Amino acid sequence: MGFLDKLNIFNKVRVVLSHTTHPGNIGAAARAMKTMGLQHLYLINPRHFPDPQATAMAAGADDVLQNTVVCDSIDEALQDVVLTVGMTARLRDISNEVLAPREAMPQVLQQAASHPVALLFGTEMSGLTNEEVSRAQMLVNIPANPDFSSLNLASAVQVISYELAVAAQTFQPVAQTLQPAAHEQVEGFMLHLEKTLHEIGFFTTQNPARMMQRLRRLYARARLEADEINILRGILSVTTEYNARLKARYRQDHDV
Amino acid sequence: MGFLDKLNIFNKVRVVLSHTTHPGNIGAAARAMKTMGLQHLYLINPRHFPDPQATAMAAGADDVLQNTVVCDSIDEALQDVVLTVGMTARLRDISNEVLAPREAMPQVLQQAASHPVALLFGTEMSGLTNEEVSRAQMLVNIPANPDFSSLNLASAVQVISYELAVAAQTFQPVAQTLQPAAHEQVEGFMLHLEKTLHEIGFFTTQNPARMMQRLRRLYARARLEADEINILRGILSVTTEYNARLKARYRQDHDV
Repeated sequence: MGFLDKLNIFNKVRVVLSHTTHPGNIGAAARAMKTMGLQHLYLINPRHFPDPQATAMAAGADDVLQNTVVCDSIDEALQDVVLTVGMTARLRDISNEVLAPREAMPQVLQQAASHPVALLFGTEMSGLTNEEVSRAQMLVNIPANPDFSSLNLASAVQVISYELAVAAQTFQPVAQTLQPAAHEQVEGFMLHLEKTLHEIGFFTTQNPARMMQRLRRLYARARLEADEINILRGILSVTTEYNARLKARYRQDHDV
Repeated sequence: MGFLDKLNIFNKVRVVLSHTTHPGNIGAAARAMKTMGLQHLYLINPRHFPDPQATAMAAGADDVLQNTVVCDSIDEALQDVVLTVGMTARLRDISNEVLAPREAMPQVLQQAASHPVALLFGTEMSGLTNEEVSRAQMLVNIPANPDFSSLNLASAVQVISYELAVAAQTFQPVAQTLQPAAHEQVEGFMLHLEKTLHEIGFFTTQNPARMMQRLRRLYARARLEADEINILRGILSVTTEYNARLKARYRQDHDV
């Protein structure tokens, strides 16, 4: 594919760094991105930004830093995103599939041909939190020395951006028939689902947090479409109404 | 291939950094190497080493730094090496073939299965010198944004080490029938060749430096075997002797 087509797709790719400790790593990540043609950097609550160290390490990728979007929450950083790829040091996850970069990047490009996607990196010390992992539809692990697997944050950004750029050289977009749901639509559904499960008394015998985690993973794997979200929320609404009607009839019958 | 076989091959791979300016980059390169299972770092005239910044950026790859070999010259750093891979920001070279990392790394593994190989990186600002390029049998370019192609040195080491590690996952060594010549054997031949060409008066009509550069490239592409070096040097010796005999006969005939 030509370089201009690639730029067009790369324009839909954002790199999201969560709670970065060292500003130098932010600048180095910006440089790594720009060498591979990526330009959209989002930061979730960085400890220091803007910062002279970030600028020094960017070494000419000042435009990336100047356009960086600083966010208060992961949901803000993932606004409009239809595919979130979480980077993990683990080879396996409880139930999410963990892919190698080379397997994942063609799928990332396929989505980015039409919708925003996010490459999500955790902190230098501990990576992504469980909550952050739960926002990802795909997890990626950079294969590494089992005795020393911790890549520098900017090095990880470099490897992933490089894999994306190399994948783009041979990428041919497939016409999409699906309309994937945006991050905020998925989150709206999850809230609705949790509220409904509370209302119908489902959580009286279940641990709500653990159950929601499992349901999140199920729907993350499914990669929900916008239409499907409407259907599922319709079911939830009817469930609650049905439940409300039952309650009303119960009150009527028992005269309470 | 198993992880132990990989370690065995990786034990024959050295990363050579020439005239590195910033000690932090040396430490970051050591970390990048170790995350991918590489351990042998050689430095040619680093500006500062050892240095606290190098140690800080190594972030646990102290063993790599402790075993680092500091050299005075490129020939010292390439002692015993049969394949030197030079990293270049250029997409093409006058006559050397320039490969992508993904094309080059299986060949590097193939050589490293039996003999030492070197991955050679130039300075942060200007990369490899022409003299250094002339010591390489293979040049590798990391594909990058044409408007901003300068990767951080440690990031480049990370990408190359990563490609080597990924290539090693599927690598199957082919039994080698050739005995490639070591770096110092090639250099010995080049000196012998240059001396001989002087003696026979070849350089009277040629620019010696440019001609030697061209001959170097020719033999770099050929990937000389140890036996072939012996043959070529034998030819050179006979040439000089023949020349000496001619001179002696001339002196005799003309009574000078």
